[in-house]
Amino acid sequence: MRNAARWAVTLGLTATAVCGPLTGPAAAALHAPSTLVLTMGHGVGAAAAAPERAVTLSCAPTPSGTHPAATEACAELQGTDGDFATLTPGGRVVCTKEYNPVVVMAEGAWQGRRVSYERTYSNECVKNASVTSVFAF
Amino acid sequence: MRNAARWAVTLGLTATAVCGPLTGPAAAALHAPSTLVLTMGHGVGAAAAAPERAVTLSCAPTPSGTHPAATEACAELQGTDGDFATLTPGGRVVCTKEYNPVVVMAEGAWQGRRVSYERTYSNECVKNASVTSVFAF
Repeated sequence: MRNAARWAVTLGLTATAVCGPLTGPAAAALHAPSTLVLTMGHGVGAAAAAPERAVTLSCAPTPSGTHPAATEACAELQGTDGDFATLTPGGRVVCTKEYNPVVVMAEGAWQGRRVSYERTYSNECVKNASVTSVFAF
Repeated sequence: MRNAARWAVTLGLTATAVCGPLTGPAAAALHAPSTLVLTMGHGVGAAAAAPERAVTLSCAPTPSGTHPAATEACAELQGTDGDFATLTPGGRVVCTKEYNPVVVMAEGAWQGRRVSYERTYSNECVKNASVTSVFAF
């Protein structure tokens, strides 16, 4: 009986040693990272525009981050395989032609590929009309 | 008495209308954003190295994100005013001279300034010995 108990302890420790590393960094590494920081500021081009707002967005293993609509934003990015340039616009919105340019940036990783995207819109209304959820923060 | 109740409701609604917008995006905008995505991968230079791990780090209003030691990482960055190049190394560590380069990147915003930092180390041990918490993930 004491031998059986010793075996049980040994097996338990072995299982912990084998399975333990799957929590923490190793578990995170099972997914190619889809983790981004999205920023927006006023100006033409990211070099000239100080970031006024910034949110984080992770899409693997589940949507998370400080983005106010992480689930919708991840679904849209999954629809374009992480291609920011082909995100589809939202509904029809009428914007003024006021020139007050805003620049958005996305940086980080999408399914293990490096992401560095920026786009300047003539004003914030045009930005909001051009993509549905990803840059709505 | 009914008049008093009506006044109470009116005051309550006014308070909600005035104070309500301070939660959500407006509240976040009270702090210049300090929000980053930190990535690491194997290779020389970010252009050649696919991100293998990525974490988010926000330092305002409080440390948060998927970084495993957000509080320590934010404290270190506050100590250098967000200057990644002058982060101090940890304790003395002896590393092999194996050449298996890793590159780390930090992108996003620090106190409203744009951040785009990358550095290549000759191997992961050298990376871990070079900065204490910020790139330890």
